[in-house]
Formats: sequence, structure tokens, C-alpha cells
Amino acid sequence: MQGRMVVTSPVIVAAIVVVVSLSLAAAVDARGRSRRLVRSYDEPCKKMRLYFHDIIYDYSNSTSNSTSAAATKPTALATAVSRNGTFFGEVVVFNDPMTEGKALPPSLEETAVRAQGLYLYDKKEEYNAWFAFSVVFNSTAHRGTLNLMGADLMFDKRRDISVVGGTGDFFMSRGVATLRTDAVEGFTYFRLQMDIKLYECYV
Amino acid sequence: MQGRMVVTSPVIVAAIVVVVSLSLAAAVDARGRSRRLVRSYDEPCKKMRLYFHDIIYDYSNSTSNSTSAAATKPTALATAVSRNGTFFGEVVVFNDPMTEGKALPPSLEETAVRAQGLYLYDKKEEYNAWFAFSVVFNSTAHRGTLNLMGADLMFDKRRDISVVGGTGDFFMSRGVATLRTDAVEGFTYFRLQMDIKLYECYV
Amino acid sequence: MQGRMVVTSPVIVAAIVVVVSLSLAAAVDARGRSRRLVRSYDEPCKKMRLYFHDIIYDYSNSTSNSTSAAATKPTALATAVSRNGTFFGEVVVFNDPMTEGKALPPSLEETAVRAQGLYLYDKKEEYNAWFAFSVVFNSTAHRGTLNLMGADLMFDKRRDISVVGGTGDFFMSRGVATLRTDAVEGFTYFRLQMDIKLYECYV
Repeated sequence: MQGRMVVTSPVIVAAIVVVVSLSLAAAVDARGRSRRLVRSYDEPCKKMRLYFHDIIYDYSNSTSNSTSAAATKPTALATAVSRNGTFFGEVVVFNDPMTEGKALPPSLEETAVRAQGLYLYDKKEEYNAWFAFSVVFNSTAHRGTLNLMGADLMFDKRRDISVVGGTGDFFMSRGVATLRTDAVEGFTYFRLQMDIKLYECYV
Repeated sequence: MQGRMVVTSPVIVAAIVVVVSLSLAAAVDARGRSRRLVRSYDEPCKKMRLYFHDIIYDYSNSTSNSTSAAATKPTALATAVSRNGTFFGEVVVFNDPMTEGKALPPSLEETAVRAQGLYLYDKKEEYNAWFAFSVVFNSTAHRGTLNLMGADLMFDKRRDISVVGGTGDFFMSRGVATLRTDAVEGFTYFRLQMDIKLYECYV
Repeated sequence: MQGRMVVTSPVIVAAIVVVVSLSLAAAVDARGRSRRLVRSYDEPCKKMRLYFHDIIYDYSNSTSNSTSAAATKPTALATAVSRNGTFFGEVVVFNDPMTEGKALPPSLEETAVRAQGLYLYDKKEEYNAWFAFSVVFNSTAHRGTLNLMGADLMFDKRRDISVVGGTGDFFMSRGVATLRTDAVEGFTYFRLQMDIKLYECYV
């Protein structure tokens, strides 16, 4: 070690920032193969719009086309408060098709993307729900899953839930999904628009 | 490219560290607006103490004031083992008020902070529970949600569950919440103290 | 500011990368005590193989040895589609022993590692499940919890779910768990091999 060293210009600072960003992105990998973490807090590193189709099977609607089913009846609390009932306490298990467009898929059972999990109704005076589920991708475009949970505040036009993890092509992903009710047909069918935005991607 | 370059002193190392830290903190932002990630593993970047109030509606207690309801009855396994029953398998859906102080809020339905989701009892010989829910903030102080899940090991004085994600003011947050049973009134009411500590905040 | 500055060799780049890695790893800690984040995207920072034992109590099998119980019956949708039934909509609450070896533990109630939470069946034509639960460690080796959720795609030999958070010794951990069905005995018992791989550890 000796000599003099002079940091001259913004050029060197920029160079360091570039190196830093690269090393941030590159996983320490003693074995050659390498995954990188891409973080971006303002712009998603990955974005997808998908539609979630729910055809419910319950006491008032029963068709073998259904892709979800009420595992529990609404509790008496729902009707104790509201004559119409708001389904408070009803837990629904679903295996719902998801599509890129709004149309129902030709087959309700065989789609490249499915949502599997549960939602429940949790408000006495009006409709309000809570979700926990996986989005399962099984196509040439994507293989893997995203895991989501959060409050579906149905009276807000747009509401956000969390993407809390992922596997396969979505290894360790995190982000936010924005829900918007896109269609409702009585108590038998609804469609949600889901804008999935990942802010941590591992590629 | 030419010449020689000598790294002389700790000064340059320190300079690099500063640049690195800055670039760590600043989100890559092509649009001007900018979110930053604040990580701190020893001290939370955000702390809150909230009280969770649960007034249950079930076969033994039914009042329209209730903020939660048993969606399923305890299973026969609960009574097969314990005469008193430990509610094994009972799933409860809730939309419970949360408050900064211990007192029940004037209105059980309209509070700035609510907890929405489910808990279930999962032990044969004694009480033990498991939670998955969202804390929904809707006030001038905070708008957004935190999503939590974890084991409520009721026989531990303090037990931790995970904050696995957040939205709005709590965009992408992670952390831990420490639960403490603060009051129990028979089978009709209980109050938990929840110390929410976020260790990853995006501001 | 003056002079010239020439970046000559890969040596300086390597030096910067080392400094960056160190600063990445060390938590900003103004108080002396210090937790560090270890991230590794290709090799887990922590790995465990555990076996999950489920002995169910339901309408067809009832023994007080059971460690799980059906909180809801399969929905009519399950039998509407398949004569044998695929349990669509059955929600199971469990408090299952986990072991390092394949053998059932001497006591089903007292083990150092337990899995507490729920799974549900969510496919009409065949078996398919979805899990959300905590792994609770209570031994001299480990104290704390890991929280997991994800799709258990039973027809895949290996399938991944997410580790979305942790507490205690597993403070803020994230990762993936790979499930493999290791044994099935009719409708009364099954054993899953769970390979838990953490890619974010805070030590």
C-alpha cells in the first residue's frame, strides 16, 4: 500500500453505484448457478392482471359446475343483526379458475392458473370478506405458486391484500394484489379483477 | 483506460460504505417519487400497542353485540378427551375492534382499527389457539392493513406471531406481534394486548 | 477535487464487492447488540427435514389418539361430482407431532416440534389440499415458530409451500418447504416429509 489516490469526478461515484447495484443483485453463490434478487419499491419487478371466477355451491345454489363450496353456514349472528343476512361466519373453500381475459374459460376445471384456498364473510351489517389462498400456475409460461392473504374490504372500490411468498418461478416473491369487483350475478357468481404486483422478485 | 490506481487509506473504504448504504436505502426510482426500505433487526422501525377485544357469539352465548362468531362447533375429539371440552376444532370468524387503551370502544362497530379473520382452537387437553387475520386501519393517523398469522400458545405468558405483509401505509411491512392475555370473562369476552413491532418498513 | 483517476484492475472491483457484502450482512445497530441478516438464494442458510404425522378424527375414524379433527364435513359438491367423495370443503384442524425420524413419537402429545393450524380439501375429482399452519419448536435445540402456507398439490410427487415468517430462534425467517407424501394408511393416518429451507435467516 502506498501512493496517492484522488477521487475526482461523479464518474467514479456512478461507477461505484453500478458495482454496488450489481453486487446487491447477485446472490453469493459458491456453486456457479446464481439467483438474483431484484427489489423495486416504486415500480413492480413483475405485474400481472388476472380475473378470479367464483361459482359457489351452497344451500341456495347447487350445481356440479361450481368451483367453490360453503364449508360452513352463515352463523346466527348474521341473521340476528340483519334480516337479509350478510353471511357472517360463512367459510367458503374454493378452487377457482383464473384467466387473463374476463370470459369464463371453456373448461372450469382445466386452466393454466387456479386460485385455491378459502374466503370467509366477516361483517354483520354488510358484505365484507377475508381471503387466504394460493395462485397455482401450471403452463409453459409459468410454473409455481404465489401465496396471498388479506382483508377484502368489499365496500372499497379497490383494496389491497398481501402477496406473502411464492415458489417455483415465483420463488420467495413478495408484493401486493389490488382487488376490484368486476361482476356479481346474484349469489351464484362473482368475478374479481386482481392486479398482482411483485416488488421483490428472485430471478 | 490507462494508468495506475492505488487504494490508499480507510477513507476511501468509508466513502464506499457510505455510498453503499445510501444505495441500499434508496429505491431504484425512474419516476421521481421514491420509497425507501428501512430495515432494523434490533430495534423496530415501527412499534404499536393495541388491544384486541373479542365478544363471541356461539351456542352458549348469543348477543347481537358480538363481534365474533363460532363458524364450527368444537369437534367430538374435544369432549372425547376432556369432560370440560377445550373447543378443539372450533373455528371462530371475527371482526373485532382494536383500541389504544384497554376500555371497550363506545361503538363496537365503528372503530379506527379492526382485526378481521379467524382463529381456531387446536389442543385437546387445554386451551390453545391459532390466528390468521388482518389489522385494518382506517383513520387520519393510518390507512392500510397488516396481515398476521401464527400460533397463540395460550399457556405462555407472552407469545409471538408473524406480521407477514402489509398494504397502504404499511406497504410490504414485516415483523412480529407479541400477544399477552389481558382479560378473560368466562366464555364471552377476552382481551389480548398486541405489541406490533415492524422490522422492515417501507417509507 | 482535481487530477485523474483510473480504475485499472478487477482487484479493485473485487474489493468493493467484499465491502458491499459485509455492509449488506451487518444490521445497522446503534446499540451494540446486533442481529445480522444472512441471505442466500441458491443455498439455504438453514435446512431441516421433519416428518409430519396426521391421525384424523372424523365421522369414519374416531380415536382419542387423534391429533387432528375434521371441523367441517365434506360439502355436497364433493359427492355431487365423485361417488367416492374427495372431501371437497372439509376443513381439518390439527396439532400434529413432527419428528426427525419416520417413526411415530412415543407420546403423541409431547413432542419437541408440533405443527398447529389447518388444512382443507379443495378439489372435486381427486385429492388436493391447502395448508396454513405454524411449526412450534420447544426444545433445547430450538425455541420459536415458523409460519407456513401454500397449496399441497397432492398429485405432484414434490410440491413447495412458503415459509412466510418466524419468531424466536426463527425471527423474521423466510423460505420454502418441500412436501412429499411419505405414507398413507387409509383415511386414518398420513405422513408428510417436509424439507424446510430458509433463504433469509436473522442470526
